[in-house]
Amino acid sequence: MTDYRTLRVALLGAGAVGSQVADLLLRHGDELADRAGAKLELAGIAVRNLDAKRDVDLPHDLFTTDAETLIVGSDIVIELMGGIEPARTQVLHAIASGADVVTANKALLATHGSEVFEAADQVGAEVYYEAAAAGAIPIIRPLRDSLAGDRVVRIMGIVNGTTNYILDRMDTEGADFADVLAQAQALGYAEADPTADVEGYDAAQKAAILASLAFHTTVPLDAVHREGITSVDAAMIESARHAGYVIKLLAVCERLAAENGGTESISVRVYPALVDRAHPLASVHGANNAVFVQAEAAGDLMFYGAGAGGVQTASAVLGDVVSAARRHIAGGVGVGESTRANLPAVPIGHVITRYQITLEVDDRPGVLATVAGILSEGRVSIATVEQTVIEASADAADPVAATGSSTGAGSARLVIGTHKAREQDLSETVERLAASGVVERVVSVLRVEGN
Amino acid sequence: MTDYRTLRVALLGAGAVGSQVADLLLRHGDELADRAGAKLELAGIAVRNLDAKRDVDLPHDLFTTDAETLIVGSDIVIELMGGIEPARTQVLHAIASGADVVTANKALLATHGSEVFEAADQVGAEVYYEAAAAGAIPIIRPLRDSLAGDRVVRIMGIVNGTTNYILDRMDTEGADFADVLAQAQALGYAEADPTADVEGYDAAQKAAILASLAFHTTVPLDAVHREGITSVDAAMIESARHAGYVIKLLAVCERLAAENGGTESISVRVYPALVDRAHPLASVHGANNAVFVQAEAAGDLMFYGAGAGGVQTASAVLGDVVSAARRHIAGGVGVGESTRANLPAVPIGHVITRYQITLEVDDRPGVLATVAGILSEGRVSIATVEQTVIEASADAADPVAATGSSTGAGSARLVIGTHKAREQDLSETVERLAASGVVERVVSVLRVEGN
Repeated sequence: MTDYRTLRVALLGAGAVGSQVADLLLRHGDELADRAGAKLELAGIAVRNLDAKRDVDLPHDLFTTDAETLIVGSDIVIELMGGIEPARTQVLHAIASGADVVTANKALLATHGSEVFEAADQVGAEVYYEAAAAGAIPIIRPLRDSLAGDRVVRIMGIVNGTTNYILDRMDTEGADFADVLAQAQALGYAEADPTADVEGYDAAQKAAILASLAFHTTVPLDAVHREGITSVDAAMIESARHAGYVIKLLAVCERLAAENGGTESISVRVYPALVDRAHPLASVHGANNAVFVQAEAAGDLMFYGAGAGGVQTASAVLGDVVSAARRHIAGGVGVGESTRANLPAVPIGHVITRYQITLEVDDRPGVLATVAGILSEGRVSIATVEQTVIEASADAADPVAATGSSTGAGSARLVIGTHKAREQDLSETVERLAASGVVERVVSVLRVEGN
Repeated sequence: MTDYRTLRVALLGAGAVGSQVADLLLRHGDELADRAGAKLELAGIAVRNLDAKRDVDLPHDLFTTDAETLIVGSDIVIELMGGIEPARTQVLHAIASGADVVTANKALLATHGSEVFEAADQVGAEVYYEAAAAGAIPIIRPLRDSLAGDRVVRIMGIVNGTTNYILDRMDTEGADFADVLAQAQALGYAEADPTADVEGYDAAQKAAILASLAFHTTVPLDAVHREGITSVDAAMIESARHAGYVIKLLAVCERLAAENGGTESISVRVYPALVDRAHPLASVHGANNAVFVQAEAAGDLMFYGAGAGGVQTASAVLGDVVSAARRHIAGGVGVGESTRANLPAVPIGHVITRYQITLEVDDRPGVLATVAGILSEGRVSIATVEQTVIEASADAADPVAATGSSTGAGSARLVIGTHKAREQDLSETVERLAASGVVERVVSVLRVEGN
């Protein structure tokens, strides 16, 4: 074997990902050395509890509870503890000690990314985080490097495996949210406390990271509009299917053209959206993830793969470790994060997209005209309308009932597809519809993404 | 605007890709400078004919026929001439002059890659070639960097847009090869001389590049087994559809386990193969490309996008230019190509895959038993058989005819799906079938890829 220089690697955390990273580092040492041009010596693994059960059998003498001492003198520190503290303190400690950092910690980067990257810049260290954005899917390097000469217009990502698993099961089985969530928890696809996933927090963190890279702009987490999937029910899924759509929790990162002599801006948002069944994102099933990127020159690109999982995510972490090692051997300072564009992020009200509005209305003459009038006043243009009777009325069998000109006292369901509208106009219009005498209930308002 | 250092960029070639690269460099100069940390000055464009018509209007004074002089003193040389010579000479000249090279020239890299990379290594220059493997799809960095800590097991790529367009049209329209090729030529999807595409030469070059990266091994072009799509006809497409498959021209790069105490080896091959319609590659339509990667830890990944097109490919070229510029600014030498694994490439005969064999046989008793016997002797195990009568015989209406035990003198079609078999066993067995008295014609032998 070639006589390589040895680099000291410290691992913080030995959970689902960490234990796999340690295992691969130990098992594939020679092969990784050939790729990296340096021997990667696992100096130790810092954990909270030395006796916790691990997914993989690892040499006991590698474990320590003293992360601070382990970090000192390390060339590369892999942070896989998750959460903000003590991860933040240890990462800053590693950078200050002159190490490069590899992390999969999306919460840390989405909330303290600027602090971490600035600290690294000051000492010429690099922070690698391929595993933080979409698990095993290589998306960081394509965005940062491959598309660096292009202009990203839009990203639509399925970046949370748990919610995609739940929505996919609801779609294929017609099951309701709570039932599928319980199943997912039993199978280990969802946490006991599923809030971070089902309320979109995890996806919002990833959206902030992707948007920062794509638009060369620091995107704070609170600039990301976030809605979860807890309000999605079987009826909405069925209605979406009927209209040729599937419901996906999307992370949308969008570049908005300059208006009135201003500058360009961006919108970053996470919500359950209707996606045409012919769109490549519609065929992302189970707990898989995919990131659909539209760029001015490159056109449409899609990156697909496992969004989570210990060994899958370990692949992305080790790719970063090899990159860090190569940089150590080659010398030279890192390129840092390019945030020179610094585009402003607009609030959700400024977003322009298409909508599907589902209403329960009185089934009597003039209702459709009233609804159409309110939409028109609100600058929301109707693309499609479908009305169906949902409660039997005296003349439910009368064919004119379905056109909204019945004289019965029953209810009808009105599904309205809109042309592109401004979110603020849309939500004000929906409020006026709800307050109008003719609408019994606003069943759902969903954005339609991915023309 | 920030006061950046200026890097001198020389462009060789102003065809479909080159003219778009020049246009984007000129139009997005400020934005690219912010991303690269350096001003990218297009010093000149070397062309053969100063007066040729270009896709884009470019300043006339940039053009020169003197590539050699243009190269001297350039920091980055973009080679988009295509073909082996004079591209090879100019690229080596650029490297010797101390420039980094960006190229989309798959023919050059597949045939003279080692020479080019070694020349670059010697002077510490970098060669970037994201656009050479799958057009606009970022695949080089994911393979080289993101998956550097993993072990790629298998790549299946649709890497030629022209053939995918042709096969897709044949599949959706039931049209024959020659008709669709003529249409594709009329629409500009295929060249007047389509040999490089339809005979698989283009895909073979890309397969060599992808396999080299994935397996850290120099893969010479003549180690790539190559078959084109000219023998694919409407009947084969229809038969594939009937069996739940679609025919795609695949570039398959495979890692083969060590046998009998030997070392691992690889197989690199290009041929039209049957792909299950549920496989993600089956839904790659039109002239699009996709690269499906299976890695030990990361699992299944897919990269999808435009495989060709001037402006799309220009995106990949400019990403490389920005990377080269960042490296110039940051200092440090490149990581070079990792070919330390140097796995041997095996001939096609060693490949193990599944097959679909379509035969025309005599429709009389004992034929199926004879065929099955020959397969069994040849160590080819049958997974599925479907027999249909294709010529009316005296007792064609007799239900037993369809089971091969008819006594008539007509013909039957036998479609045999095999379990995994060694290509050499398979081809020898097919020869024995052809020479046997009972087989009238071997209609087709297709490999089944995926899963």
